[in-house]
Amino acid sequence: MERDPLRTVVFSDAVIAIAITLLVLEIRVPQDAQDLLHGLITLWPSYLAYVVTFMLIGQIWANHHVMFDQIRRVDRVVLFLNTVLLMDIAFLPFAASVLAQAFHEGHGQRTAVVFHGLTFELAAILFNVIWEYARRNHRLLATTIDSAGARAISWRFRLALVWIATGILLGLLVPALGLAVIAAFIPFYWLPIQGEIARVKRRRDSGGQA
Amino acid sequence: MERDPLRTVVFSDAVIAIAITLLVLEIRVPQDAQDLLHGLITLWPSYLAYVVTFMLIGQIWANHHVMFDQIRRVDRVVLFLNTVLLMDIAFLPFAASVLAQAFHEGHGQRTAVVFHGLTFELAAILFNVIWEYARRNHRLLATTIDSAGARAISWRFRLALVWIATGILLGLLVPALGLAVIAAFIPFYWLPIQGEIARVKRRRDSGGQA
Amino acid sequence: MERDPLRTVVFSDAVIAIAITLLVLEIRVPQDAQDLLHGLITLWPSYLAYVVTFMLIGQIWANHHVMFDQIRRVDRVVLFLNTVLLMDIAFLPFAASVLAQAFHEGHGQRTAVVFHGLTFELAAILFNVIWEYARRNHRLLATTIDSAGARAISWRFRLALVWIATGILLGLLVPALGLAVIAAFIPFYWLPIQGEIARVKRRRDSGGQA
Amino acid sequence: MERDPLRTVVFSDAVIAIAITLLVLEIRVPQDAQDLLHGLITLWPSYLAYVVTFMLIGQIWANHHVMFDQIRRVDRVVLFLNTVLLMDIAFLPFAASVLAQAFHEGHGQRTAVVFHGLTFELAAILFNVIWEYARRNHRLLATTIDSAGARAISWRFRLALVWIATGILLGLLVPALGLAVIAAFIPFYWLPIQGEIARVKRRRDSGGQA
Repeated sequence: MERDPLRTVVFSDAVIAIAITLLVLEIRVPQDAQDLLHGLITLWPSYLAYVVTFMLIGQIWANHHVMFDQIRRVDRVVLFLNTVLLMDIAFLPFAASVLAQAFHEGHGQRTAVVFHGLTFELAAILFNVIWEYARRNHRLLATTIDSAGARAISWRFRLALVWIATGILLGLLVPALGLAVIAAFIPFYWLPIQGEIARVKRRRDSGGQA
Repeated sequence: MERDPLRTVVFSDAVIAIAITLLVLEIRVPQDAQDLLHGLITLWPSYLAYVVTFMLIGQIWANHHVMFDQIRRVDRVVLFLNTVLLMDIAFLPFAASVLAQAFHEGHGQRTAVVFHGLTFELAAILFNVIWEYARRNHRLLATTIDSAGARAISWRFRLALVWIATGILLGLLVPALGLAVIAAFIPFYWLPIQGEIARVKRRRDSGGQA
Repeated sequence: MERDPLRTVVFSDAVIAIAITLLVLEIRVPQDAQDLLHGLITLWPSYLAYVVTFMLIGQIWANHHVMFDQIRRVDRVVLFLNTVLLMDIAFLPFAASVLAQAFHEGHGQRTAVVFHGLTFELAAILFNVIWEYARRNHRLLATTIDSAGARAISWRFRLALVWIATGILLGLLVPALGLAVIAAFIPFYWLPIQGEIARVKRRRDSGGQA
Repeated sequence: MERDPLRTVVFSDAVIAIAITLLVLEIRVPQDAQDLLHGLITLWPSYLAYVVTFMLIGQIWANHHVMFDQIRRVDRVVLFLNTVLLMDIAFLPFAASVLAQAFHEGHGQRTAVVFHGLTFELAAILFNVIWEYARRNHRLLATTIDSAGARAISWRFRLALVWIATGILLGLLVPALGLAVIAAFIPFYWLPIQGEIARVKRRRDSGGQA
């Protein structure tokens, strides 16, 4: 059962798009607000969980494409691991909801930050496992990628693994700090500097035009 | 990381389609209605919020295509700004829900109209920022668009920015009026007159057949 | 603003797929059921509303393709009417929920059947309006369709209009009967006899192979 | 009304992707948890229902492609049966919710396991009916499939039918055992051994490269 990854990618995109859009359902209109403005302001933990989780799922989506752009065929193992990855991503609206509620109620933040972080860590682990499996089974990879390109992707996925793990560990000590570290992965990811490094690397590796 | 915008457009379309369809979940069946007809009628603020938000998201969808039809490549900046735009669009079911509840309960309308309007204003700002960024980085634009065509799109996006801002400011004074002004953007957008202007413009600009 | 209908069709398909799948969210697990089996059985009005609405949306989806298969270009008017049609379709999970609750509580069935029916009737009206508009603006139609083919589609859409209107009128007198008439459109639609008529017609009209 | 299955497959994929992602909405954040960690742990029946149902819908998705890869045309009967299949798949989030609640509350497990299993059994029945119908109407099948290939798919679909029926029957006696048997279909499906058998079979049947 080896096949073209197109349908797997389309299905994955759909699940990721739905999960990211369902995040908003966890934000409930304040019911008893005499003062609506005050009610909306007290929902800040929901907005925080929404923004952090939305942007991180956005990165997952982008990275999923970075990976599958280089995979030419999916076998049963990749299909299974990808299904587990989607199961983890689709679980994120619940993790975001747990996070929002803990910060709203003012207790349980440690548990919530770790729970939320672990859901992302599992995604990072699965990215690494899928990619290393594909690298070792060269017939699954596109012929256009060289080993420098493959190493660059490995490096990127390992960094996410370590970064989020660090956030979880710090969250065990100081919950808000752990969340801040995980959230800091968003600006890091989008910073032009990282894009520049990648562009330079790619140009050097492929000897020319990106 | 410059790439073909196809996947970004497909992903954006999916998020917009999901957000627009989730709007209905905010309308709840009246639970205690002895008289169901009366119960359904008292839900008018929910229908109003549904119709206004649905039609405006419909315009966002159409405009997103107008913009990305002219964008040939997306770089990291466009991808980031588009993710923030999607985060804002996916937030609209919550804003619609806030609007419906305020008009249902009869207080908080000022806050709700401004909150709902600001969510659309943020979308309008992001449209303008993405488009001006793309115009200044000509390699991102399709070669088929000339500067008159690019200016026409800029004009369209700036108009939305000003129109919604006007609605928000009026909403601070008279909430219902502010909402009416924002809602009036819907018939304006679909009026044949605007379509005629655009068609004439395009014909003049490209010298012929649309 | 005339354009290829592909994106409109893809967006419409997404909205219809989401609306049809959201129907299930209106079915709530019985919370206080000492006897779960009994609790599940008392949910029969929810299953009924689910099945009738799901199958009718399935027909709407199929008919949307029948119509847009013949439309070569969409102008601003078609785009506007289609957006209103999608707004109506996306509203159906709420109408189904109203229907389920009325039959569950044992009062308000008249209102609920009419409300549910009117939502479908509005869709039928919009199908007729879009199609007649497209027929009168021949440049919007595919060149492969002849006037017999166009008439066959008109006939099909008018039948739906009359059928559902009849169901609504009967529902004003006897709610269960009105619902039964509307539901009877499902087997009629899928009956091989109708397919046979259509196939014979098409073969006669195009003089050969389907 | 015979047509290319592409749109049917795309629509089916969308419904399956939405249903699988809606599963998470049935997991509710513990509201009264003084101890959030304890609250999250007591949700284990929800996680169990989530994982089992998610992975089984993943298999349904994969099998839907296995089947429609071999179907060249869909007629009205296939379209009708597929709509009923989608109606059953879209119902699964409710079945998962029933399962989670019964194990959470500690009573009604027998009913819940049977109810959940029957929803999957109906899907298995529909797969068998659609496939046998397509096999008997050879003009619907792709010309690239030979009778050995068609038999292999029949065998696969019949196995699912029997496996899930066995789980339901055992669930009538010992609920947890029945659920375990149904869940055991997941590792069986993804086990390399099965993939190996299929690959060998296909190679033998088509005399070469997969």
